[in-house]
Amino acid sequence: MKAVDPIEASVILPSLPAGLETPCLVIDLDVVERNGRTLQSALDARGVRLRPHAKTHKSVAIARIQIELGAAGLTVGTLGEAEVMAAAGITDLFLAYPLWADGPKARRLRELNERIAFSVGIDSIAGAEQLASATRGATKALAVLIELDSGGHRTGVGTPEAIAELADAARDLGLDVGGVFTHGGHSYADPEAHAQAAVDEVSHLGDAADALRSIGIEPRTISAGSTPTAVEAATGQVNEIRAGTYILGDRQQVVLHGSPPDGVAAYVAATVVSTSVEGHVVIDAGAKTLTKDRASFLEGYGAIPAFPHAVIDRLNDYHGIVRIPAGTRAPRLGEVVAVVPNHICPVVDLFDSFVVTRGPEVVGAWPVDARGRSG
Amino acid sequence: MKAVDPIEASVILPSLPAGLETPCLVIDLDVVERNGRTLQSALDARGVRLRPHAKTHKSVAIARIQIELGAAGLTVGTLGEAEVMAAAGITDLFLAYPLWADGPKARRLRELNERIAFSVGIDSIAGAEQLASATRGATKALAVLIELDSGGHRTGVGTPEAIAELADAARDLGLDVGGVFTHGGHSYADPEAHAQAAVDEVSHLGDAADALRSIGIEPRTISAGSTPTAVEAATGQVNEIRAGTYILGDRQQVVLHGSPPDGVAAYVAATVVSTSVEGHVVIDAGAKTLTKDRASFLEGYGAIPAFPHAVIDRLNDYHGIVRIPAGTRAPRLGEVVAVVPNHICPVVDLFDSFVVTRGPEVVGAWPVDARGRSG
Repeated sequence: MKAVDPIEASVILPSLPAGLETPCLVIDLDVVERNGRTLQSALDARGVRLRPHAKTHKSVAIARIQIELGAAGLTVGTLGEAEVMAAAGITDLFLAYPLWADGPKARRLRELNERIAFSVGIDSIAGAEQLASATRGATKALAVLIELDSGGHRTGVGTPEAIAELADAARDLGLDVGGVFTHGGHSYADPEAHAQAAVDEVSHLGDAADALRSIGIEPRTISAGSTPTAVEAATGQVNEIRAGTYILGDRQQVVLHGSPPDGVAAYVAATVVSTSVEGHVVIDAGAKTLTKDRASFLEGYGAIPAFPHAVIDRLNDYHGIVRIPAGTRAPRLGEVVAVVPNHICPVVDLFDSFVVTRGPEVVGAWPVDARGRSG
Repeated sequence: MKAVDPIEASVILPSLPAGLETPCLVIDLDVVERNGRTLQSALDARGVRLRPHAKTHKSVAIARIQIELGAAGLTVGTLGEAEVMAAAGITDLFLAYPLWADGPKARRLRELNERIAFSVGIDSIAGAEQLASATRGATKALAVLIELDSGGHRTGVGTPEAIAELADAARDLGLDVGGVFTHGGHSYADPEAHAQAAVDEVSHLGDAADALRSIGIEPRTISAGSTPTAVEAATGQVNEIRAGTYILGDRQQVVLHGSPPDGVAAYVAATVVSTSVEGHVVIDAGAKTLTKDRASFLEGYGAIPAFPHAVIDRLNDYHGIVRIPAGTRAPRLGEVVAVVPNHICPVVDLFDSFVVTRGPEVVGAWPVDARGRSG
């Protein structure tokens, strides 16, 4: 029998409304607002700005909730997300990505820079040259933040010397070097990784800020970003946090200490469509609904809190195969169950809209405005 | 260093056009048409109908190519896919899924049944009751095919006795029992699994057809479905094949013998955006573009045929981290590479449109008409 993880078992979901047409993606506004307030207050208390990452929700309505709660602007992952949020009147965006701005992307970048307060990540001189060339002659210099690698080993410059060199080159190219940022992605390695990852983000960002000062640039922004480290990294010289997933929560965040047990605002409602094969039931949520995202410390492709022993063992495109260990309860044929996705961000990208609830009541349908804007 | 799989290394991709805005999903029409002709001819020669699964491409234009080449209609995975194809004038659809037709789905099912030749899978008496109740009083009885489990152990009835019992109950409910179908999903277990899976599909379908005859129903349709078994299962009593992925191909199909090395019609074009961290390069195609689908026999989240030693080790939402083993070639910063997805079906569902090519020339942009229609 599956050993039920005690943290996972503590998840408290909002009530499942009746009459849902499955599969659908439900978000509960009471939980969204509570999640938003909790992190905003924690960072306000530390005097650190919050710039939430919009890639989690891709929703103008949720972005507005975050701004109203006090966010300093938004983080985005692509030009497409930036365009959607700018069109909705959000005027301060940071693209936390080493954009390669050639071809049509040069024009798109130029237009965003003319329209709003827009800044972009860089981690190479060649990338900085592309950005400079794309925005040459603009009415204002493009703001850039130097990305540094604080241990996640994805993108970013490695040493203070290299950071200073890149910042110097970017300044010479006419870019406005606004500061430094990092993503402590190693906070996702295992349930206890957040503490060291936060220490790494803070210390590397401090060194990087000092490297900028050593060449005469006072950084306006010193920015860390990852939900598991969001509060712990809001210290030292860090003056901005770019958490994303905190607003919706997911199964992996609960295990990673990024969300409290009652912080899961989003789930997929699915119907049991088959119980014909012994040992499992089949739900109408497969890989095109839940995705095959699964961290090494999680069993199965999502959690079903109402049936804590059930394991979503396999996903085909439209089928989820849910193993029911002998002696444990199973949902019946036709029953609707709430599934907490392992990782909410790629799940949101598969839906055109959210079903919006407050408790057991459906209060609206909100578009996933930036769905599919991966470039 | 990565041991390059000889089959994977044999993949021949269409030429990469210049000036693509990445990430984008490219399909080459010459390859699509060749894939379509090859399977259609093989099945024509065996006197077996082809009913391609539209969930792979979700495209009206590709569906029309398949129909023009001789397909007997289409298979779909959801009511949403059926509605898109029916609206485009495709008049013969089979929903190969044990639909649970309550609430708004009952109405949608009824409308499809009035409009086109529509049939639906069943694997339980309770499911059949839902379908009968949803279509009661319609101008024609809803056609159903009994799903049987031929070894994939997902959905479907297990024994000839149970098949006869379900068919009898469905007939009593006023449904038009048109035959039997199965999906030999165990053909995906490993590269050599297709042969036994095809044998299983054929023998179980033969027994199931005989079970229907034993209660006085002559099956019109005896249908097997999976790309790796598509030709091998077109024998015995089988009179229909429901392959899907054969039309676009993907990395896993090449390894599973479902696609020839020159049968990969679809790839993701991605740009190298960062080379700052030692040992890997980062492309602008992550989990929201390539998906984390990865069969146990594949290394990494996609193949890059031009750099056969490279391994796509990690995917974040918009970043793909591509390990470059020491001593092997790496793409340069800003270079565009073609990535063959592990599994094309969920990748297509992430894009609004295909970039359509013939050889190195871009000839159009086709919508992914049924994108996101997972219910």
